[in-house]
Amino acid sequence: MSLAFDIAARDGAARTGTIRTPRGDIRTPAFMPLGTAGSVKAMLPENVRETGADIILGNTYHLMLRPGAERIAGLGGLHKFMNWPRPILTDSGGYQVMSLSDLRKITEDGVTFRSHIDGSEHFLSPERAMEIQRLLGSDIQMVLDECPAYPATEAEIEKSLSLSMRWAKRSKAAFGAQDHRACFGIVQGGTFAHLRRRSAEELQAIGFDGYAVGGLAVGESQRAMFDTLEATAPHLPGDRPRYLMGVGKPDDIVGAVLRGMDMFDCVLPTRSGRNGQAFTREGALNLRNARFADDPAPLDASCRCPACRQYSRAYLHHVVKAGEIIAAMLLTWHNLAYYQDLMAGLREAIANGRTAAFAAEIAAVYARTAARQD
Amino acid sequence: MSLAFDIAARDGAARTGTIRTPRGDIRTPAFMPLGTAGSVKAMLPENVRETGADIILGNTYHLMLRPGAERIAGLGGLHKFMNWPRPILTDSGGYQVMSLSDLRKITEDGVTFRSHIDGSEHFLSPERAMEIQRLLGSDIQMVLDECPAYPATEAEIEKSLSLSMRWAKRSKAAFGAQDHRACFGIVQGGTFAHLRRRSAEELQAIGFDGYAVGGLAVGESQRAMFDTLEATAPHLPGDRPRYLMGVGKPDDIVGAVLRGMDMFDCVLPTRSGRNGQAFTREGALNLRNARFADDPAPLDASCRCPACRQYSRAYLHHVVKAGEIIAAMLLTWHNLAYYQDLMAGLREAIANGRTAAFAAEIAAVYARTAARQD
Repeated sequence: MSLAFDIAARDGAARTGTIRTPRGDIRTPAFMPLGTAGSVKAMLPENVRETGADIILGNTYHLMLRPGAERIAGLGGLHKFMNWPRPILTDSGGYQVMSLSDLRKITEDGVTFRSHIDGSEHFLSPERAMEIQRLLGSDIQMVLDECPAYPATEAEIEKSLSLSMRWAKRSKAAFGAQDHRACFGIVQGGTFAHLRRRSAEELQAIGFDGYAVGGLAVGESQRAMFDTLEATAPHLPGDRPRYLMGVGKPDDIVGAVLRGMDMFDCVLPTRSGRNGQAFTREGALNLRNARFADDPAPLDASCRCPACRQYSRAYLHHVVKAGEIIAAMLLTWHNLAYYQDLMAGLREAIANGRTAAFAAEIAAVYARTAARQD
Repeated sequence: MSLAFDIAARDGAARTGTIRTPRGDIRTPAFMPLGTAGSVKAMLPENVRETGADIILGNTYHLMLRPGAERIAGLGGLHKFMNWPRPILTDSGGYQVMSLSDLRKITEDGVTFRSHIDGSEHFLSPERAMEIQRLLGSDIQMVLDECPAYPATEAEIEKSLSLSMRWAKRSKAAFGAQDHRACFGIVQGGTFAHLRRRSAEELQAIGFDGYAVGGLAVGESQRAMFDTLEATAPHLPGDRPRYLMGVGKPDDIVGAVLRGMDMFDCVLPTRSGRNGQAFTREGALNLRNARFADDPAPLDASCRCPACRQYSRAYLHHVVKAGEIIAAMLLTWHNLAYYQDLMAGLREAIANGRTAAFAAEIAAVYARTAARQD
């Protein structure tokens, strides 16, 4: 185990602590902005850090296709390439092979697919996925898994899970023993509690530095996701980080923390920022809405980001409507600051034993906004 | 005259000095980045300032259509709206009415046109152009002129010039006397020396705080532009700022400074930055070029901008190819830093009496790049 994980406080199933890596500490619960193709979209990395991020996520699928893992290794690794000296977690590429590429062919050995960029053919196996992540210089590497489509039958999920568990074993063998880097397994099993338990147990038998929960946030209800977490978390080791992949909206994250999750990534704050949507202490706001055209108020009066300190909602409305790049820059910055403030709020609430009250506040805000539909 | 203009040194026809405005000093020769629609594209204003810009340009045409001059006035003016507390020069809208809008109809009174955004009909007269600039809170306001198409016959240019001079008089009358703001006239006359002289003299008879040279950088050769400046500058007052509108490439600007121009604006550094082009001490580079894919060197080793200090050419090549927003952000920042360094170099060269040598260096670099065609 190359990652030290110090849990400082617990509140029910929720925990707050610090994951220690050679490239820096990760305060948990942690949100990891997406640095998809070597850039957290519309942000300079020093500003990502300013929002409070301790770690970002890089996508193996995108980076293997362009500019290529060997090229990044030749240039000194992903951290140097993209000017982010702190921890990077990389996914295995499996999820995006399923969602973005064409002509996938999955065999026991791995998956053959065509690039969504230029149609070129590529092959990803558990061994190659780990090799790519090693070439990138990733601090936390993920096993290759198969991500079944949603919805799927129990038989389909079971078959996919079995393959993912065999791939997990091969991934770990390929990862080997590395002093300064960690390898996480990924629990699959759809929304079937017994399959999640089986997956969690099989992964522990292999032994990983941390455990991710995959195959959620693919279309199931929030209730189904929470139920699945409740059925999974008790079967994961208490002293290892738990990473819920691809989640989510603020109230999803809060609910998952209540159920024992420690790490998160999601496209929402960055993608929404590019689409004129802001997460605020009033809920989600769509800056395209004409009601903001003459609004001199800041986006979120209690936020410390430049979008909120230096501009009005009227300005943000204008630049969103005009398609100005600064709209993506400011709203992405704000959304990442909001998410990091949310995580800081969760860490403090857990330390003070008031996580449930904090969670209820966030859920109420987001329930109100959903009803207002802006 | 509300602008103090202190000329500190001359070298031949070139001059260096300081324009003093209530919102701050403008060191000349000065380059004004375009803040077209309320944003210097892909830049935060504090970073525009970091590059060394003392003043930016706002476009009356864009801002009158969206979000509207009265709206910006209601929100406290353009400086506050876009978070740029330093001087702003606004154009009159005339040039962009000609180049961007549909169904223009020009009469003695003004120009009726349809918005390129939504097809709505608008009217711009000399009086309305000045009113809009006053509502925006512009520090340096430009008279409305007619910008003839290029090429045009002498008779067409003469007719257009006569209208522009009548509009200049009406613009100045509408501007009135304002203590804290300045109004510039615009010399027209195509590439006809006698018309340029006539225009310069007629404008002086009206009396302006500064004099712009318009109607260049519309397709004529660099030689024709320089000849026109040589035929115009001697007929402008020596103690007032001279602004060459819409120019240009680095060697265009240097040549114009040699011929007595003080202020410049151009879309090139910002637009090129969004298109993967960089201006460097080696000349213009196209970062799309495959020869940069594995190049670990900085874009421009002697540049102090973040793109050059923190990234390799290989990274910039990658983000340009991948269409990442950070490519526009970093290359725009670099290009603006390059342009501001160029102006600082010119100011120093003029102060030290070595402007011709400085100009020859820049011209040689850009002649080389043009030959290399990347």
